[in-house]
Amino acid sequence: MKFYDCATAPSPRRVRIFAAEKSIALPTVQVDLRNGEQFTDAFRAINPDCTVPALALDDGTVIADAVAICGYLEEVHPEPALIGTTPQERAMVTALNRQIERDGFFAAMDALRNAAKGLKGRALPGPHDYEQIPELAERGRTRLGHFFHAMDARLAERQFVAGSRYTIADISTMVLIDLAGWTKITMPDECVHLRRWYEAVSARPSANA
Amino acid sequence: MKFYDCATAPSPRRVRIFAAEKSIALPTVQVDLRNGEQFTDAFRAINPDCTVPALALDDGTVIADAVAICGYLEEVHPEPALIGTTPQERAMVTALNRQIERDGFFAAMDALRNAAKGLKGRALPGPHDYEQIPELAERGRTRLGHFFHAMDARLAERQFVAGSRYTIADISTMVLIDLAGWTKITMPDECVHLRRWYEAVSARPSANA
Repeated sequence: MKFYDCATAPSPRRVRIFAAEKSIALPTVQVDLRNGEQFTDAFRAINPDCTVPALALDDGTVIADAVAICGYLEEVHPEPALIGTTPQERAMVTALNRQIERDGFFAAMDALRNAAKGLKGRALPGPHDYEQIPELAERGRTRLGHFFHAMDARLAERQFVAGSRYTIADISTMVLIDLAGWTKITMPDECVHLRRWYEAVSARPSANA
Repeated sequence: MKFYDCATAPSPRRVRIFAAEKSIALPTVQVDLRNGEQFTDAFRAINPDCTVPALALDDGTVIADAVAICGYLEEVHPEPALIGTTPQERAMVTALNRQIERDGFFAAMDALRNAAKGLKGRALPGPHDYEQIPELAERGRTRLGHFFHAMDARLAERQFVAGSRYTIADISTMVLIDLAGWTKITMPDECVHLRRWYEAVSARPSANA
């Protein structure tokens, strides 16, 4: 098994935290996104999508998506469960995690990639170049405001995002909040439940993975 | 079990096809999206996200996401497998399906929702209103061009999107191609492998579900 990572990037960080919570050690290769290593022929042969994370299994199969890698790790190392232990629980957490990606993670990505000077012409990851759309950066900021308040209401009634247990949905939320911070988008002061939760999950050893 | 559907909408169609391939009959309720039924208090009590599909289980649990519902149906009705039969196969199909959503489904949604006159002020589904961004509609069209060619190359070497077996990735791709057609975005003539595949999957009885 070989994990293609980039220590500074948010998507592979989701997998690193997920693996750390399960005490799985992933043999890791750093891909130098800053210097365009993802566009080299050598890396395209591993993942033609030119993105990290990617997990290469021993038979040569490559899983090139953060959530799909987490699903695989959950199946081969079920304990502690970070998705769920029943079909119903897995479905609930999967639905919640996808909603968080859509309303939070992708919104934070839109805000960053359509505004950062260093990403001009690179508003989307992957093999194709797209120009930044400033209105999309602005929409991302607005969406994150709604997202923070919705998550605050959710966490007023729950210890963790999905309920009483730490899950992949907590990982996605923490990572996107840190990503939003890169463009100075921060949790509003009045979101006290979200802030309480954020402090707690950020204090877990896995947060440094 | 109760399936909240809208016969004309692409996201619940993914679930309808998935269920039809497994010969699962879902007791169904139509939600009138055109007349705003998703914003009523009655529907918000079922899904506060104001979207379909949603699957309510007998214990009251609601799974409010197309892919999460499909994952649940796969677990409770494993045959025929539409995701996979091993952890590795499930991970590969999940990664591929997510890539197809990102590069194809979301691109088609961007193209439609940021251009259709009837969706002014409603560029995203969900409880919040967002103005259309014409550049995002245009970017969606460009991305779909890349997507069609990438899928054509993939299908030059495979019977179905993921290999020799029909999967959820075929369903996502067929539904997004039909969605793209609403804004007159069609598969290029030279994409002969994609067109051969599209004719085959569209001829399956499930395509009418």
